[in-house]
Amino acid sequence: MCTAVSYHTKDHYFGRNLDFECSYGESVTITPRRFLFSLPEGAEFRTKYAMIGMAHVAEGTPLYYDVVNEKGLAMAGLLFAGNAVYQKRQEGKDNIPSWALLPWILGQCETVAEARELLERIAVTDEPFSEALQPSPMHWMLADAAQCLVIEQMADGLHLYDNPIGVLANNPPFPFHRENIRQYLNVTADPAQDRFSGQELLSPFSRGMGGFGLPGDLSSASRFVRAAFVKLNSRSAEGEKESVSQFFHILGAVEQQRGCCYLGEGKYEITIYSSCCNLEKGIYYYKTYDNHSITAVELHKENLDGEELICYPLA
Amino acid sequence: MCTAVSYHTKDHYFGRNLDFECSYGESVTITPRRFLFSLPEGAEFRTKYAMIGMAHVAEGTPLYYDVVNEKGLAMAGLLFAGNAVYQKRQEGKDNIPSWALLPWILGQCETVAEARELLERIAVTDEPFSEALQPSPMHWMLADAAQCLVIEQMADGLHLYDNPIGVLANNPPFPFHRENIRQYLNVTADPAQDRFSGQELLSPFSRGMGGFGLPGDLSSASRFVRAAFVKLNSRSAEGEKESVSQFFHILGAVEQQRGCCYLGEGKYEITIYSSCCNLEKGIYYYKTYDNHSITAVELHKENLDGEELICYPLA
Amino acid sequence: MCTAVSYHTKDHYFGRNLDFECSYGESVTITPRRFLFSLPEGAEFRTKYAMIGMAHVAEGTPLYYDVVNEKGLAMAGLLFAGNAVYQKRQEGKDNIPSWALLPWILGQCETVAEARELLERIAVTDEPFSEALQPSPMHWMLADAAQCLVIEQMADGLHLYDNPIGVLANNPPFPFHRENIRQYLNVTADPAQDRFSGQELLSPFSRGMGGFGLPGDLSSASRFVRAAFVKLNSRSAEGEKESVSQFFHILGAVEQQRGCCYLGEGKYEITIYSSCCNLEKGIYYYKTYDNHSITAVELHKENLDGEELICYPLA
Amino acid sequence: MCTAVSYHTKDHYFGRNLDFECSYGESVTITPRRFLFSLPEGAEFRTKYAMIGMAHVAEGTPLYYDVVNEKGLAMAGLLFAGNAVYQKRQEGKDNIPSWALLPWILGQCETVAEARELLERIAVTDEPFSEALQPSPMHWMLADAAQCLVIEQMADGLHLYDNPIGVLANNPPFPFHRENIRQYLNVTADPAQDRFSGQELLSPFSRGMGGFGLPGDLSSASRFVRAAFVKLNSRSAEGEKESVSQFFHILGAVEQQRGCCYLGEGKYEITIYSSCCNLEKGIYYYKTYDNHSITAVELHKENLDGEELICYPLA
Repeated sequence: MCTAVSYHTKDHYFGRNLDFECSYGESVTITPRRFLFSLPEGAEFRTKYAMIGMAHVAEGTPLYYDVVNEKGLAMAGLLFAGNAVYQKRQEGKDNIPSWALLPWILGQCETVAEARELLERIAVTDEPFSEALQPSPMHWMLADAAQCLVIEQMADGLHLYDNPIGVLANNPPFPFHRENIRQYLNVTADPAQDRFSGQELLSPFSRGMGGFGLPGDLSSASRFVRAAFVKLNSRSAEGEKESVSQFFHILGAVEQQRGCCYLGEGKYEITIYSSCCNLEKGIYYYKTYDNHSITAVELHKENLDGEELICYPLA
Repeated sequence: MCTAVSYHTKDHYFGRNLDFECSYGESVTITPRRFLFSLPEGAEFRTKYAMIGMAHVAEGTPLYYDVVNEKGLAMAGLLFAGNAVYQKRQEGKDNIPSWALLPWILGQCETVAEARELLERIAVTDEPFSEALQPSPMHWMLADAAQCLVIEQMADGLHLYDNPIGVLANNPPFPFHRENIRQYLNVTADPAQDRFSGQELLSPFSRGMGGFGLPGDLSSASRFVRAAFVKLNSRSAEGEKESVSQFFHILGAVEQQRGCCYLGEGKYEITIYSSCCNLEKGIYYYKTYDNHSITAVELHKENLDGEELICYPLA
Repeated sequence: MCTAVSYHTKDHYFGRNLDFECSYGESVTITPRRFLFSLPEGAEFRTKYAMIGMAHVAEGTPLYYDVVNEKGLAMAGLLFAGNAVYQKRQEGKDNIPSWALLPWILGQCETVAEARELLERIAVTDEPFSEALQPSPMHWMLADAAQCLVIEQMADGLHLYDNPIGVLANNPPFPFHRENIRQYLNVTADPAQDRFSGQELLSPFSRGMGGFGLPGDLSSASRFVRAAFVKLNSRSAEGEKESVSQFFHILGAVEQQRGCCYLGEGKYEITIYSSCCNLEKGIYYYKTYDNHSITAVELHKENLDGEELICYPLA
Repeated sequence: MCTAVSYHTKDHYFGRNLDFECSYGESVTITPRRFLFSLPEGAEFRTKYAMIGMAHVAEGTPLYYDVVNEKGLAMAGLLFAGNAVYQKRQEGKDNIPSWALLPWILGQCETVAEARELLERIAVTDEPFSEALQPSPMHWMLADAAQCLVIEQMADGLHLYDNPIGVLANNPPFPFHRENIRQYLNVTADPAQDRFSGQELLSPFSRGMGGFGLPGDLSSASRFVRAAFVKLNSRSAEGEKESVSQFFHILGAVEQQRGCCYLGEGKYEITIYSSCCNLEKGIYYYKTYDNHSITAVELHKENLDGEELICYPLA
């Protein structure tokens, strides 16, 4: 389904694979400062900060999949089917429909710490964007240069989890992944040595055998583990080009190739796009399944005080 | 199908699981010294050394599954379907049918080294014991206190492999298992540590997690690896009781529980019996699937210069 | 550490492996009806039902590891280090120290359903049995002929989980195991077929290869999965002998062999004993690490209205 | 180290990842027809067919890593350290040094079948290209539109193996990989179902869980299995763009990310380049580790009857 990753070299990077069987029509979309979002029951809010990310734009409103604001706060939504349970409107809470959560937070927060305060007062509601656009069951990863947080609205309430691993996939809820990854402690990027026999009886037959045991499938649990392994062991030069290249190699390790995840009825899940955003510079990079070249869009090259969304159709 | 193991504490032990969907009727059988074996085409040989092991006795002839002689040389046959290709009779060779190989070798050799010389001159032939008892496709493990050898008669000839691991299972041929086990170098009996992240980010949630990655199924490749792991890491006191107990725990790790290996037509493979023989003392211990108690039969308590086979029906 | 299993043929069976680096001195112990248990702060209770199980007896009090009462309700405690958080005494609750939980429940309940009601009113307290016997961090599996329940007293409260799998091991909490086992759906007791290539390109080389992927290590997560696989696929005749034999084969699949789980300082975890109790007949069977024979003790052959504990030292 | 793949849609594609810790300086190199190769001891040969591929050019001679000729016959060399044993010059054989094997075969053969005849008469010799360029231990994959062959020159002779899987990696020798892949029969691109419990007790928690069990590490054995799985299950439109895109996704599944395969002394193995050649059209596509865009060079747009090598430095 999806994998999100945060990665740090000299700058900080945040991005994701969006995995699905079809595209809903998305574009790299810049929302300028003081953009008006209309909420149910006549409510509305204006963003303070401009933001850039991948969105499906409906009726002039950007429905973001992943997005970064001009302060370097980033957020991505990932499918969380069966576990996401949104709330009914509640008295005394900020009632924010799931589809508006990203601009609500990124429109007014500079950091994860600020967002955490906001989230304490929020009810993530099940109100649809429109009759045609019913809410998708999602959970979210939120990150800045210093911290990473997972947000899960479930039947038993809103959960916020610190995420020192800096990776998110889909089901089950985050606490499972946090335990599951601990099963793979044996896996290492170092050369394999004979730990098996307790004596010098066996030797590796290939480079890379320290990694034996790493799961190679496309389930969310295995993508979480594999993305974490590649991210935590990644080595790259600190320059922008090398950092971004390495980021896409991390996402490449959990990419979904057409044919490997059959859904029935002739449908296959694939990685529709992969994205990477430099949090400091506000540059949004992406690739698509059939366009392997990296395309960049720069937030700060645009007029961020305009009134209109700025949309770049995918290359 | 089967797993054979050699294990050393103060004394030396050799045994096996016999895994199959049914029993052919076997008993612990002692063959005395100077026992006559009749071979095809009027040939025959007399054994020099007495031996004890598990055999199906047909027409007064012990067809051994696993056996140890009074000099401490042990041998077991394990199913090797599709890979064992026995030979036609050859001029200038000792033509020994596969069913007579065990007494041929153990009847006249004290050590693996002696047996190796004998094997250089042998043709393992495809001659059946009788119309009703056609040859089974087998390969063999041969061991004494110092060495362990694997014997595979295949389409491209007779192969002898030194076996420092001291374990044998079934298909594929031994060279595969020798490589395959090298994939599991990460597995350890030591406590797990965070090798995954390259930093102190993760910790084990349970004892025994150093072993994560060890295969748990009943295929021959996985039984080979698991038996090797348990054997190579085994710790036991040196006494007879503790050594034998530990040996059966090693075999227990690769035991086939009824229901876990379905063969179709209502049949399941199970561990018909497990055996362990003290090579120095000539004591043969065994358990069966539904008799968990260990029964012992002692070679040296019998008259080894008699003329008849001595058979102990299974307890 | 430990694995508990419930298993049904014609009768119902419940038992466990106790895995540890040393024994604290336990015996098969029968507690008669109307036996008095003294609790902290002068409280006390008398049992209504007799029970049989493995206990360390301290100052005349049986501290049960696993136990079954005359009504066929069974319970076992398994180590739950780091996750068990017992409570302080609470007003308006039945304050039961962790060490008294088993006789408290089995002394007065006939079924899991009854016990569930009792558990709603309970506080599992952190009061030690004595200065020398501080509370062990445990969680519990409770079963009768119809149901199976897991009980976990954690920092965030008392959790009761229905357990249709009928297996329990140690850390992490039960919800993790319930998800983790779902990773192993591919594993089967049926013969392997080529699902890999989507065509008839590959074939198995051994029986039992449908089980490839089953974890073979001694971690609690892997023992949970392996015990569940063997239990759920077990086939045995319905008689007492065959059922009990099969039960010990299930426990054998998750047994800890000495040497395979090193704890440091020369210590190894082993399966101290394995037990199996017939819930209907009240017969308690067990084996120990170095005594492979099965010993049976029958509840209903004793005077259950006596005043004293009846203890059988281990064979 | 390396992975080679052949893949068929409407046209036929052949390519590879070259994995190493450093580049030796390679370029896309076209060798025209009737190009002269000088061999040791004054021998020489002229190619009949033009070819395009990746080569290190030394003293005007292309030392190809992977190459395709104008007839659609393709070949790649992959590291085979410890197992490749080249021969001394032999009387009555075509003595071809390992570095000249690719142009020797592709210079005169249209098909795998033709090459097989040539290989029967060959001795792959250990003669170095120069003092500075000693022979590398390699094995080779050779493919046309219809067949795929593996060539291994070892201590016991030259082995030719039909390769219906159409994938090659590094050690151990090919027969190991052919057996090893059979361990993964349970893995499927189809949705996971409960095969574990033999009843409807468990369900998948994510898409893609049919693939659980697929190995995710960078060892040659695991890359072989993973590349085979992705290739055999690949679905793509038949057009050139989609086929080439899918080919690079297959190679992406076995790509080496910097940091995940540590070699000691600050060195990491990475995928230096990935290539894909359309066998019918003679178009050579490639990417490098830090240039994710696909670059194409067309054999048939060049003058193939010139006298000079045509080299394209990597983009």
